[in-house]
Amino acid sequence: MDTTITRSTGTPLKGETGQEARRRIRGGGHRVPTAYAAPGYVQGNLAILPKEFAADFARFCALNPKPCPLLAQSEPGDWRLPTLGADLDIRTDIPLYRVWKKGELIEEVTDLKKVWRDDLVAFVLGCSFSFEEALMENGLELRHMTCDSNVPMFRTNIECKPAGPFHGPMVVSMRPFRPADAIRAVQVTTRFPSVHGAPVHIGKPELIGIKDLAKPDYGDAVPVHDDELPVFWACGVTPQSVVATVKPEFCITHAPGYMLVTDLLNAQLAVL
Amino acid sequence: MDTTITRSTGTPLKGETGQEARRRIRGGGHRVPTAYAAPGYVQGNLAILPKEFAADFARFCALNPKPCPLLAQSEPGDWRLPTLGADLDIRTDIPLYRVWKKGELIEEVTDLKKVWRDDLVAFVLGCSFSFEEALMENGLELRHMTCDSNVPMFRTNIECKPAGPFHGPMVVSMRPFRPADAIRAVQVTTRFPSVHGAPVHIGKPELIGIKDLAKPDYGDAVPVHDDELPVFWACGVTPQSVVATVKPEFCITHAPGYMLVTDLLNAQLAVL
Repeated sequence: MDTTITRSTGTPLKGETGQEARRRIRGGGHRVPTAYAAPGYVQGNLAILPKEFAADFARFCALNPKPCPLLAQSEPGDWRLPTLGADLDIRTDIPLYRVWKKGELIEEVTDLKKVWRDDLVAFVLGCSFSFEEALMENGLELRHMTCDSNVPMFRTNIECKPAGPFHGPMVVSMRPFRPADAIRAVQVTTRFPSVHGAPVHIGKPELIGIKDLAKPDYGDAVPVHDDELPVFWACGVTPQSVVATVKPEFCITHAPGYMLVTDLLNAQLAVL
Repeated sequence: MDTTITRSTGTPLKGETGQEARRRIRGGGHRVPTAYAAPGYVQGNLAILPKEFAADFARFCALNPKPCPLLAQSEPGDWRLPTLGADLDIRTDIPLYRVWKKGELIEEVTDLKKVWRDDLVAFVLGCSFSFEEALMENGLELRHMTCDSNVPMFRTNIECKPAGPFHGPMVVSMRPFRPADAIRAVQVTTRFPSVHGAPVHIGKPELIGIKDLAKPDYGDAVPVHDDELPVFWACGVTPQSVVATVKPEFCITHAPGYMLVTDLLNAQLAVL
Protein backbone atom coordinates (compact mmCIF):
# COMPACT_ATOMS: atom_id res chain seq x y z
CA MET A 1 0.00 0.00 0.00
CA ASP A 2 2.41 2.52 -1.33
CA THR A 3 0.56 5.70 -0.69
CA THR A 4 -1.48 5.47 2.47
CA ILE A 5 0.77 7.60 4.57
CA THR A 6 0.54 11.02 6.06
CA ARG A 7 3.76 12.67 5.07
CA SER A 8 3.91 14.69 8.25
CA THR A 9 5.01 11.59 10.11
CA GLY A 10 8.72 10.92 10.07
CA THR A 11 11.57 13.36 9.79
CA PRO A 12 13.38 14.29 6.59
CA LEU A 13 16.69 12.48 6.51
CA LYS A 14 18.63 14.19 3.77
CA GLY A 15 21.84 12.62 2.61
CA GLU A 16 21.07 9.22 4.10
CA THR A 17 21.57 6.27 1.72
CA GLY A 18 19.15 3.40 1.28
CA GLN A 19 21.59 1.09 3.03
CA GLU A 20 21.93 3.47 5.98
CA ALA A 21 18.14 3.67 6.28
CA ARG A 22 17.81 -0.14 6.23
CA ARG A 23 20.51 -0.53 8.89
CA ARG A 24 18.73 1.96 11.10
CA ILE A 25 15.43 0.18 10.55
CA ARG A 26 17.02 -3.25 11.13
CA GLY A 27 18.53 -1.99 14.39
CA GLY A 28 15.16 -0.82 15.66
CA GLY A 29 16.00 2.87 15.36
CA HIS A 30 13.20 3.74 12.93
CA ARG A 31 9.61 3.01 13.87
CA VAL A 32 7.77 5.53 11.69
CA PRO A 33 6.67 5.46 8.04
CA THR A 34 9.48 5.68 5.50
CA ALA A 35 8.27 8.63 3.41
CA TYR A 36 11.19 10.79 4.48
CA ALA A 37 13.82 8.07 4.71
CA ALA A 38 16.74 8.06 2.23
CA PRO A 39 15.54 10.75 -0.19
CA GLY A 40 16.28 9.82 -3.80
CA TYR A 41 16.28 6.08 -3.14
CA VAL A 42 13.65 3.71 -4.50
CA GLN A 43 11.13 2.38 -1.99
CA GLY A 44 8.98 -0.65 -2.65
CA ASN A 45 5.75 -2.40 -1.72
CA LEU A 46 6.08 -5.88 -0.20
CA ALA A 47 3.99 -9.00 -0.70
CA ILE A 48 5.20 -12.35 0.69
CA LEU A 49 3.31 -15.46 -0.38
CA PRO A 50 3.75 -19.24 0.01
CA LYS A 51 5.48 -20.65 -3.05
CA GLU A 52 2.33 -22.47 -4.21
CA PHE A 53 1.04 -18.99 -5.14
CA ALA A 54 4.33 -17.57 -6.38
CA ALA A 55 4.20 -18.56 -10.06
CA ASP A 56 0.66 -17.26 -10.49
CA PHE A 57 1.39 -14.04 -8.63
CA ALA A 58 4.53 -13.44 -10.71
CA ARG A 59 2.47 -13.97 -13.84
CA PHE A 60 -0.20 -11.63 -12.49
CA CYS A 61 2.46 -8.93 -12.07
CA ALA A 62 3.83 -9.56 -15.57
CA LEU A 63 0.33 -9.28 -17.03
CA ASN A 64 -0.45 -6.10 -15.10
CA PRO A 65 2.81 -4.14 -15.01
CA LYS A 66 1.23 -0.74 -14.41
CA PRO A 67 -0.46 -1.57 -11.07
CA CYS A 68 2.09 -4.33 -10.24
CA PRO A 69 5.56 -3.24 -11.37
CA LEU A 70 7.76 -6.08 -10.09
CA LEU A 71 11.16 -4.84 -8.91
CA ALA A 72 12.42 -8.11 -7.41
CA GLN A 73 11.30 -11.64 -6.44
CA SER A 74 13.15 -13.89 -3.96
CA GLU A 75 14.01 -17.57 -4.14
CA PRO A 76 11.62 -19.65 -2.00
CA GLY A 77 12.70 -19.43 1.64
CA ASP A 78 15.43 -16.90 0.85
CA TRP A 79 15.15 -13.61 2.69
CA ARG A 80 17.73 -11.90 0.49
CA LEU A 81 17.03 -9.65 -2.51
CA PRO A 82 20.55 -8.80 -3.66
CA THR A 83 19.48 -6.78 -6.71
CA LEU A 84 17.84 -4.29 -4.33
CA GLY A 85 20.64 -4.23 -1.71
CA ALA A 86 23.62 -6.52 -1.06
CA ASP A 87 22.89 -6.78 2.66
CA LEU A 88 19.11 -6.62 2.37
CA ASP A 89 17.19 -8.96 4.69
CA ILE A 90 13.48 -8.84 3.93
CA ARG A 91 12.72 -10.25 7.42
CA THR A 92 14.14 -7.26 9.26
CA ASP A 93 14.50 -4.28 6.94
CA ILE A 94 10.95 -2.91 7.00
CA PRO A 95 9.81 -1.05 10.14
CA LEU A 96 6.36 -2.66 10.33
CA TYR A 97 4.85 -5.74 8.70
CA ARG A 98 1.36 -7.16 8.58
CA VAL A 99 0.77 -10.92 8.88
CA TRP A 100 -2.40 -12.27 7.28
CA LYS A 101 -4.11 -15.67 7.53
CA LYS A 102 -6.91 -16.54 5.13
CA GLY A 103 -7.37 -12.87 4.35
CA GLU A 104 -7.54 -11.73 7.96
CA LEU A 105 -5.00 -9.44 9.58
CA ILE A 106 -3.51 -11.48 12.43
CA GLU A 107 -0.79 -9.19 13.75
CA GLU A 108 1.60 -6.35 13.05
CA VAL A 109 5.24 -7.17 13.73
CA THR A 110 8.56 -5.34 13.49
CA ASP A 111 10.46 -8.33 12.16
CA LEU A 112 9.59 -11.63 10.52
CA LYS A 113 12.10 -13.97 12.11
CA LYS A 114 9.48 -15.78 14.19
CA VAL A 115 7.01 -16.17 11.33
CA TRP A 116 9.43 -16.86 8.48
CA ARG A 117 8.95 -20.14 6.59
CA ASP A 118 11.05 -22.00 4.07
CA ASP A 119 8.30 -21.84 1.45
CA LEU A 120 7.87 -18.06 1.42
CA VAL A 121 8.56 -15.97 -1.68
CA ALA A 122 8.99 -12.21 -1.36
CA PHE A 123 7.80 -9.84 -4.08
CA VAL A 124 8.84 -6.18 -4.08
CA LEU A 125 6.79 -3.87 -6.30
CA GLY A 126 7.53 -0.30 -7.35
CA CYS A 127 5.86 2.52 -5.46
CA SER A 128 4.55 5.94 -6.39
CA PHE A 129 7.04 7.73 -4.11
CA SER A 130 9.56 7.48 -6.96
CA PHE A 131 7.44 9.22 -9.57
CA GLU A 132 6.09 11.71 -7.04
CA GLU A 133 9.67 12.78 -6.35
CA ALA A 134 10.12 13.36 -10.09
CA LEU A 135 6.86 15.36 -10.27
CA MET A 136 7.95 17.58 -7.37
CA GLU A 137 11.39 18.08 -8.94
CA ASN A 138 9.48 19.42 -11.95
CA GLY A 139 7.76 22.01 -9.79
CA LEU A 140 4.37 20.31 -9.89
CA GLU A 141 2.15 20.55 -6.83
CA LEU A 142 0.95 17.29 -5.32
CA ARG A 143 -2.38 18.20 -3.80
CA HIS A 144 -2.37 15.48 -1.14
CA MET A 145 0.98 16.78 0.06
CA THR A 146 -0.35 20.34 0.18
CA CYS A 147 -3.26 18.98 2.21
CA ASP A 148 -0.89 16.85 4.31
CA SER A 149 -3.15 13.87 3.67
CA ASN A 150 -3.04 10.49 1.97
CA VAL A 151 -3.43 10.38 -1.80
CA PRO A 152 -7.04 9.52 -2.74
CA MET A 153 -7.42 6.04 -4.25
CA PHE A 154 -10.36 4.50 -6.08
CA ARG A 155 -11.41 1.05 -7.24
CA THR A 156 -12.15 1.23 -10.97
CA ASN A 157 -14.12 -0.79 -13.50
CA ILE A 158 -10.82 -1.65 -15.23
CA GLU A 159 -10.31 -5.38 -14.67
CA CYS A 160 -6.75 -6.60 -14.23
CA LYS A 161 -5.72 -9.50 -16.46
CA PRO A 162 -6.24 -12.63 -14.30
CA ALA A 163 -3.56 -15.21 -13.49
CA GLY A 164 -4.52 -18.36 -11.57
CA PRO A 165 -6.56 -17.28 -8.55
CA PHE A 166 -5.48 -13.65 -8.81
CA HIS A 167 -7.99 -11.29 -10.36
CA GLY A 168 -9.84 -8.10 -9.57
CA PRO A 169 -10.22 -4.45 -10.45
CA MET A 170 -7.37 -1.99 -10.81
CA VAL A 171 -7.07 0.54 -8.01
CA VAL A 172 -5.90 4.00 -9.08
CA SER A 173 -4.53 7.00 -7.23
CA MET A 174 -5.70 10.48 -8.26
CA ARG A 175 -3.75 13.72 -8.42
CA PRO A 176 -5.39 16.88 -9.81
CA PHE A 177 -3.47 19.16 -12.19
CA ARG A 178 -4.16 22.09 -14.46
CA PRO A 179 -4.19 20.87 -18.09
CA ALA A 180 -0.66 21.98 -19.03
CA ASP A 181 0.67 20.46 -15.80
CA ALA A 182 -1.27 17.26 -16.50
CA ILE A 183 0.52 17.01 -19.86
CA ARG A 184 3.85 17.55 -18.11
CA ALA A 185 2.91 14.92 -15.51
CA VAL A 186 2.26 12.41 -18.31
CA GLN A 187 5.72 13.14 -19.72
CA VAL A 188 7.51 12.93 -16.38
CA THR A 189 5.88 9.70 -15.20
CA THR A 190 6.26 8.04 -18.62
CA ARG A 191 9.98 8.00 -17.83
CA PHE A 192 9.33 5.67 -14.86
CA PRO A 193 7.55 2.54 -16.15
CA SER A 194 8.84 0.42 -13.25
CA VAL A 195 7.05 2.61 -10.70
CA HIS A 196 3.54 2.69 -12.26
CA GLY A 197 4.60 4.83 -15.24
CA ALA A 198 2.25 7.07 -17.20
CA PRO A 199 -1.31 7.71 -16.02
CA VAL A 200 -3.97 5.21 -17.06
CA HIS A 201 -6.74 7.82 -17.26
CA ILE A 202 -7.31 11.56 -17.30
CA GLY A 203 -10.51 13.57 -16.79
CA LYS A 204 -13.97 11.94 -16.85
CA PRO A 205 -13.75 9.71 -13.75
CA GLU A 206 -17.17 8.19 -14.56
CA LEU A 207 -15.67 6.39 -17.56
CA ILE A 208 -13.60 4.18 -15.25
CA GLY A 209 -16.38 3.59 -12.75
CA ILE A 210 -15.56 6.35 -10.26
CA LYS A 211 -18.82 7.95 -9.13
CA ASP A 212 -17.61 10.60 -6.71
CA LEU A 213 -14.10 12.05 -6.45
CA ALA A 214 -15.00 13.25 -2.96
CA LYS A 215 -15.44 9.66 -1.76
CA PRO A 216 -12.23 7.72 -2.33
CA ASP A 217 -12.17 4.00 -1.51
CA TYR A 218 -8.79 4.43 0.21
CA GLY A 219 -6.89 7.49 1.41
CA ASP A 220 -8.36 10.96 1.74
CA ALA A 221 -10.34 13.20 -0.59
CA VAL A 222 -8.52 16.27 -1.91
CA PRO A 223 -10.02 19.34 -3.62
CA VAL A 224 -10.08 19.35 -7.44
CA HIS A 225 -10.46 22.93 -8.66
CA ASP A 226 -12.57 24.01 -11.66
CA ASP A 227 -9.48 24.64 -13.76
CA GLU A 228 -8.03 21.20 -13.06
CA LEU A 229 -8.36 17.69 -14.43
CA PRO A 230 -8.18 14.61 -12.21
CA VAL A 231 -5.27 12.43 -13.39
CA PHE A 232 -5.28 8.74 -12.48
CA TRP A 233 -2.31 6.41 -12.02
CA ALA A 234 -2.35 2.65 -11.49
CA CYS A 235 -1.79 2.13 -7.78
CA GLY A 236 0.20 -0.36 -5.70
CA VAL A 237 -2.89 -0.99 -3.62
CA THR A 238 -4.12 -3.12 -6.54
CA PRO A 239 -1.99 -6.21 -5.76
CA GLN A 240 -2.83 -6.01 -2.06
CA SER A 241 -6.52 -5.75 -2.87
CA VAL A 242 -6.19 -8.73 -5.23
CA VAL A 243 -4.28 -10.83 -2.69
CA ALA A 244 -6.90 -10.01 -0.07
CA THR A 245 -9.57 -11.41 -2.38
CA VAL A 246 -7.70 -14.71 -2.79
CA LYS A 247 -7.37 -15.11 1.00
CA PRO A 248 -4.22 -17.28 0.92
CA GLU A 249 -3.72 -19.37 4.07
CA PHE A 250 -0.66 -17.23 4.89
CA CYS A 251 0.63 -13.94 3.59
CA ILE A 252 2.77 -11.01 4.73
CA THR A 253 2.74 -7.40 3.55
CA HIS A 254 4.34 -4.19 4.71
CA ALA A 255 2.12 -1.97 6.86
CA PRO A 256 0.80 1.01 4.86
CA GLY A 257 3.49 3.66 4.55
CA TYR A 258 6.21 1.45 5.99
CA MET A 259 8.04 0.57 2.79
CA LEU A 260 11.18 -1.30 1.85
CA VAL A 261 14.02 1.17 1.22
CA THR A 262 16.40 -0.11 -1.48
CA ASP A 263 19.86 0.78 -2.79
CA LEU A 264 18.45 1.77 -6.18
CA LEU A 265 18.23 5.46 -6.98
CA ASN A 266 14.96 6.80 -8.35
CA ALA A 267 16.99 8.38 -11.14
CA GLN A 268 18.21 4.92 -12.15
CA LEU A 269 14.65 3.82 -12.87
CA ALA A 270 14.19 6.52 -15.51
CA VAL A 271 14.19 4.93 -18.95
CA LEU A 272 15.28 8.16 -20.61
CA MET B 1 -0.96 26.66 -42.73
CA ASP B 2 0.02 23.11 -42.15
CA THR B 3 -3.31 21.49 -41.66
CA THR B 4 -5.94 23.18 -43.81
CA ILE B 5 -6.19 20.45 -46.37
CA THR B 6 -8.79 17.95 -47.32
CA ARG B 7 -6.92 14.70 -47.42
CA SER B 8 -9.09 13.31 -50.21
CA THR B 9 -7.23 15.52 -52.67
CA GLY B 10 -4.06 14.06 -54.07
CA THR B 11 -3.13 10.44 -54.61
CA PRO B 12 -1.06 8.34 -52.21
CA LEU B 13 2.44 8.05 -53.57
CA LYS B 14 4.00 5.26 -51.59
CA GLY B 15 7.69 4.67 -51.96
CA GLU B 16 8.39 8.12 -53.41
CA THR B 17 11.25 10.02 -51.77
CA GLY B 18 11.14 13.66 -50.78
CA GLN B 19 13.58 14.49 -53.57
CA GLU B 20 11.43 12.67 -56.14
CA ALA B 21 8.36 14.58 -54.95
CA ARG B 22 10.18 17.91 -55.25
CA ARG B 23 11.43 17.09 -58.75
CA ARG B 24 7.91 16.22 -59.83
CA ILE B 25 6.59 19.44 -58.29
CA ARG B 26 9.43 21.50 -59.82
CA GLY B 27 8.66 20.00 -63.24
CA GLY B 28 5.01 21.01 -63.00
CA GLY B 29 3.75 17.44 -62.60
CA HIS B 30 2.09 17.94 -59.22
CA ARG B 31 -0.55 20.63 -58.81
CA VAL B 32 -2.47 19.26 -55.82
CA PRO B 33 -1.89 19.47 -52.06
CA THR B 34 1.06 17.49 -50.77
CA ALA B 35 -0.66 15.44 -48.05
CA TYR B 36 -0.04 12.17 -49.87
CA ALA B 37 3.34 13.05 -51.39
CA ALA B 38 6.47 11.19 -50.21
CA PRO B 39 5.03 9.32 -47.20
CA GLY B 40 7.43 9.28 -44.26
CA TYR B 41 9.21 12.48 -45.32
CA VAL B 42 9.03 15.72 -43.36
CA GLN B 43 6.90 18.46 -44.87
CA GLY B 44 7.16 22.09 -43.82
CA ASN B 45 5.33 25.39 -43.65
CA LEU B 46 6.89 28.28 -45.57
CA ALA B 47 7.20 31.95 -44.69
CA ILE B 48 9.38 34.26 -46.80
CA LEU B 49 10.06 37.75 -45.48
CA PRO B 50 12.26 40.71 -46.42
CA LYS B 51 15.49 40.60 -44.44
CA GLU B 52 14.53 43.68 -42.39
CA PHE B 53 12.04 41.36 -40.65
CA ALA B 54 14.22 38.26 -40.59
CA ALA B 55 16.03 38.72 -37.29
CA ASP B 56 12.83 39.51 -35.40
CA PHE B 57 10.94 36.64 -37.00
CA ALA B 58 13.77 34.20 -36.23
CA ARG B 59 13.68 35.39 -32.63
CA PHE B 60 9.88 35.03 -32.57
CA CYS B 61 10.28 31.40 -33.66
CA ALA B 62 12.95 30.79 -31.03
CA LEU B 63 10.71 32.27 -28.34
CA ASN B 64 7.69 30.26 -29.46
CA PRO B 65 9.05 26.89 -30.54
CA LYS B 66 5.81 24.97 -30.10
CA PRO B 67 3.74 26.95 -32.63
CA CYS B 68 6.82 27.98 -34.66
CA PRO B 69 9.28 25.07 -34.81
CA LEU B 70 11.98 26.39 -37.15
CA LEU B 71 13.43 23.65 -39.36
CA ALA B 72 15.58 25.89 -41.59
CA GLN B 73 16.28 29.55 -42.47
CA SER B 74 17.95 30.71 -45.70
CA GLU B 75 20.66 33.30 -46.29
CA PRO B 76 19.16 36.59 -47.60
CA GLY B 77 18.48 36.23 -51.32
CA ASP B 78 19.46 32.57 -51.34
CA TRP B 79 16.79 30.17 -52.54
CA ARG B 80 18.64 27.09 -51.30
CA LEU B 81 18.03 25.26 -48.02
CA PRO B 82 20.66 22.51 -48.18
CA THR B 83 19.90 21.06 -44.75
CA LEU B 84 16.43 20.14 -46.03
CA GLY B 85 17.52 18.88 -49.47
CA ALA B 86 20.75 19.25 -51.47
CA ASP B 87 18.94 20.29 -54.65
CA LEU B 88 16.12 22.18 -52.93
CA ASP B 89 15.07 25.44 -54.62
CA ILE B 90 12.49 27.24 -52.51
CA ARG B 91 11.38 29.24 -55.60
CA THR B 92 10.12 26.18 -57.47
CA ASP B 93 9.66 23.25 -55.13
CA ILE B 94 6.23 24.02 -53.68
CA PRO B 95 3.19 23.46 -55.92
CA LEU B 96 1.39 26.67 -54.99
CA TYR B 97 2.54 29.88 -53.28
CA ARG B 98 0.72 32.93 -52.00
CA VAL B 99 2.20 36.39 -52.51
CA TRP B 100 1.14 39.06 -50.01
CA LYS B 101 1.60 42.85 -50.00
CA LYS B 102 0.85 44.81 -46.85
CA GLY B 103 -1.18 41.91 -45.49
CA GLU B 104 -3.27 41.46 -48.64
CA LEU B 105 -3.21 38.37 -50.81
CA ILE B 106 -2.07 39.59 -54.25
CA GLU B 107 -1.74 36.38 -56.21
CA GLU B 108 -1.22 32.64 -56.11
CA VAL B 109 1.70 31.43 -58.22
CA THR B 110 3.30 28.09 -59.05
CA ASP B 111 6.85 29.39 -58.89
CA LEU B 112 8.59 32.41 -57.42
CA LYS B 113 11.16 33.20 -60.12
CA LYS B 114 9.36 36.37 -61.25
CA VAL B 115 8.80 37.71 -57.74
CA TRP B 116 12.07 36.65 -56.10
CA ARG B 117 14.18 39.41 -54.56
CA ASP B 118 17.72 39.54 -53.26
CA ASP B 119 16.56 40.58 -49.79
CA LEU B 120 14.20 37.67 -49.15
CA VAL B 121 14.77 35.20 -46.33
CA ALA B 122 12.93 31.85 -46.34
CA PHE B 123 11.78 30.20 -43.12
CA VAL B 124 10.59 26.60 -43.08
CA LEU B 125 8.65 25.51 -40.01
CA GLY B 126 7.66 22.01 -38.90
CA CYS B 127 4.17 20.79 -39.69
CA SER B 128 1.68 18.55 -37.94
CA PHE B 129 1.73 15.98 -40.78
CA SER B 130 4.83 14.49 -39.13
CA PHE B 131 3.28 13.89 -35.72
CA GLU B 132 -0.03 12.85 -37.27
CA GLU B 133 1.82 10.10 -39.12
CA ALA B 134 3.25 8.94 -35.79
CA LEU B 135 -0.21 9.01 -34.16
CA MET B 136 -1.68 6.91 -36.97
CA GLU B 137 1.21 4.45 -36.77
CA ASN B 138 0.18 4.03 -33.12
CA GLY B 139 -3.31 3.04 -34.18
CA LEU B 140 -4.91 6.28 -32.99
CA GLU B 141 -7.85 7.64 -34.95
CA LEU B 142 -7.56 11.18 -36.27
CA ARG B 143 -11.14 12.40 -36.31
CA HIS B 144 -10.66 14.97 -39.08
CA MET B 145 -9.27 12.20 -41.30
CA THR B 146 -12.26 9.98 -40.49
CA CYS B 147 -14.46 12.93 -41.43
CA ASP B 148 -12.32 13.67 -44.50
CA SER B 149 -12.17 17.29 -43.41
CA ASN B 150 -9.63 19.86 -42.27
CA VAL B 151 -8.44 19.72 -38.68
CA PRO B 152 -10.33 22.27 -36.55
CA MET B 153 -8.19 25.20 -35.41
CA PHE B 154 -8.88 27.85 -32.80
CA ARG B 155 -7.37 31.16 -31.75
CA THR B 156 -6.62 30.97 -28.03
CA ASN B 157 -6.06 33.42 -25.19
CA ILE B 158 -2.47 32.16 -24.93
CA GLU B 159 -0.27 35.05 -26.06
CA CYS B 160 2.90 34.20 -27.95
CA LYS B 161 6.07 35.79 -26.62
CA PRO B 162 6.56 38.93 -28.76
CA ALA B 163 9.67 39.74 -30.82
CA GLY B 164 9.93 43.10 -32.59
CA PRO B 165 6.67 43.66 -34.47
CA PHE B 166 5.64 40.00 -34.22
CA HIS B 167 3.04 39.21 -31.58
CA GLY B 168 -0.37 37.67 -31.24
CA PRO B 169 -2.30 34.71 -29.87
CA MET B 170 -1.35 31.08 -30.33
CA VAL B 171 -3.53 29.15 -32.73
CA VAL B 172 -4.12 25.51 -31.79
CA SER B 173 -5.40 22.48 -33.64
CA MET B 174 -7.79 20.11 -31.86
CA ARG B 175 -8.00 16.33 -32.07
CA PRO B 176 -10.43 14.43 -29.80
CA PHE B 177 -9.32 11.22 -28.08
CA ARG B 178 -10.58 8.88 -25.40
CA PRO B 179 -8.57 9.47 -22.18
CA ALA B 180 -6.15 6.54 -22.52
CA ASP B 181 -5.55 7.46 -26.18
CA ALA B 182 -5.02 11.09 -25.16
CA ILE B 183 -2.29 9.95 -22.77
CA ARG B 184 -0.71 7.90 -25.57
CA ALA B 185 -0.98 10.91 -27.91
CA VAL B 186 0.94 13.03 -25.38
CA GLN B 187 3.68 10.40 -25.29
CA VAL B 188 3.89 9.98 -29.06
CA THR B 189 3.97 13.68 -29.91
CA THR B 190 6.42 14.48 -27.10
CA ARG B 191 8.95 12.61 -29.24
CA PHE B 192 8.61 15.24 -31.99
CA PRO B 193 9.44 18.67 -30.51
CA SER B 194 10.46 20.06 -33.91
CA VAL B 195 6.98 19.49 -35.32
CA HIS B 196 4.87 21.13 -32.55
CA GLY B 197 5.64 18.43 -29.96
CA ALA B 198 3.39 17.60 -27.02
CA PRO B 199 -0.07 19.14 -26.69
CA VAL B 200 -0.35 22.53 -25.03
CA HIS B 201 -3.76 21.84 -23.50
CA ILE B 202 -6.20 19.02 -22.81
CA GLY B 203 -9.87 19.14 -21.87
CA LYS B 204 -11.58 22.35 -20.68
CA PRO B 205 -11.36 24.46 -23.88
CA GLU B 206 -12.81 27.47 -22.03
CA LEU B 207 -9.59 27.82 -20.04
CA ILE B 208 -7.71 28.80 -23.20
CA GLY B 209 -10.42 31.08 -24.53
CA ILE B 210 -12.23 28.63 -26.81
CA LYS B 211 -15.97 29.20 -26.43
CA ASP B 212 -17.41 26.60 -28.80
CA LEU B 213 -15.64 23.55 -30.19
CA ALA B 214 -18.27 23.43 -32.93
CA LYS B 215 -17.10 26.79 -34.28
CA PRO B 216 -13.41 26.62 -35.18
CA ASP B 217 -11.68 29.78 -36.41
CA TYR B 218 -10.01 27.79 -39.20
CA GLY B 219 -10.69 24.35 -40.66
CA ASP B 220 -13.79 22.32 -40.00
CA ALA B 221 -15.63 21.24 -36.86
CA VAL B 222 -15.42 17.54 -35.97
CA PRO B 223 -17.56 15.60 -33.49
CA VAL B 224 -16.19 15.18 -29.95
CA HIS B 225 -17.94 12.26 -28.27
CA ASP B 226 -18.99 12.14 -24.61
CA ASP B 227 -16.21 9.70 -23.75
CA GLU B 228 -13.52 11.86 -25.33
CA LEU B 229 -11.36 14.81 -24.35
CA PRO B 230 -10.39 17.53 -26.80
CA VAL B 231 -6.59 17.64 -27.07
CA PHE B 232 -4.94 20.82 -28.33
CA TRP B 233 -1.62 21.21 -30.14
CA ALA B 234 0.18 24.43 -31.05
CA CYS B 235 -0.49 25.00 -34.74
CA GLY B 236 1.57 26.23 -37.68
CA VAL B 237 -1.20 28.68 -38.52
CA THR B 238 0.12 30.77 -35.62
CA PRO B 239 3.10 32.29 -37.48
CA GLN B 240 0.97 33.00 -40.55
CA SER B 241 -1.63 34.67 -38.39
CA VAL B 242 1.10 36.70 -36.67
CA VAL B 243 2.71 37.73 -39.97
CA ALA B 244 -0.70 38.78 -41.31
CA THR B 245 -1.07 41.12 -38.33
CA VAL B 246 2.28 42.81 -39.04
CA LYS B 247 1.32 43.40 -42.69
CA PRO B 248 4.89 43.52 -44.06
CA GLU B 249 5.20 45.33 -47.39
CA PHE B 250 6.04 42.01 -49.04
CA CYS B 251 5.73 38.40 -47.95
CA ILE B 252 5.32 34.94 -49.45
CA THR B 253 3.78 31.79 -47.94
CA HIS B 254 2.81 28.39 -49.24
CA ALA B 255 -0.87 27.99 -50.11
CA PRO B 256 -2.73 25.99 -47.44
CA GLY B 257 -2.02 22.29 -47.86
CA TYR B 258 0.69 22.84 -50.47
CA MET B 259 3.75 22.20 -48.34
CA LEU B 260 7.49 21.95 -48.85
CA VAL B 261 8.53 18.29 -49.06
CA THR B 262 12.02 17.76 -47.62
CA ASP B 263 14.63 15.00 -47.62
CA LEU B 264 14.31 14.54 -43.84
CA LEU B 265 12.46 11.49 -42.61
CA ASN B 266 9.79 12.00 -39.95
CA ALA B 267 11.51 9.25 -37.97
CA GLN B 268 14.68 11.37 -37.91
CA LEU B 269 12.85 14.13 -36.03
CA ALA B 270 12.05 11.81 -33.11
CA VAL B 271 14.21 12.75 -30.14
CA LEU B 272 13.93 9.28 -28.66
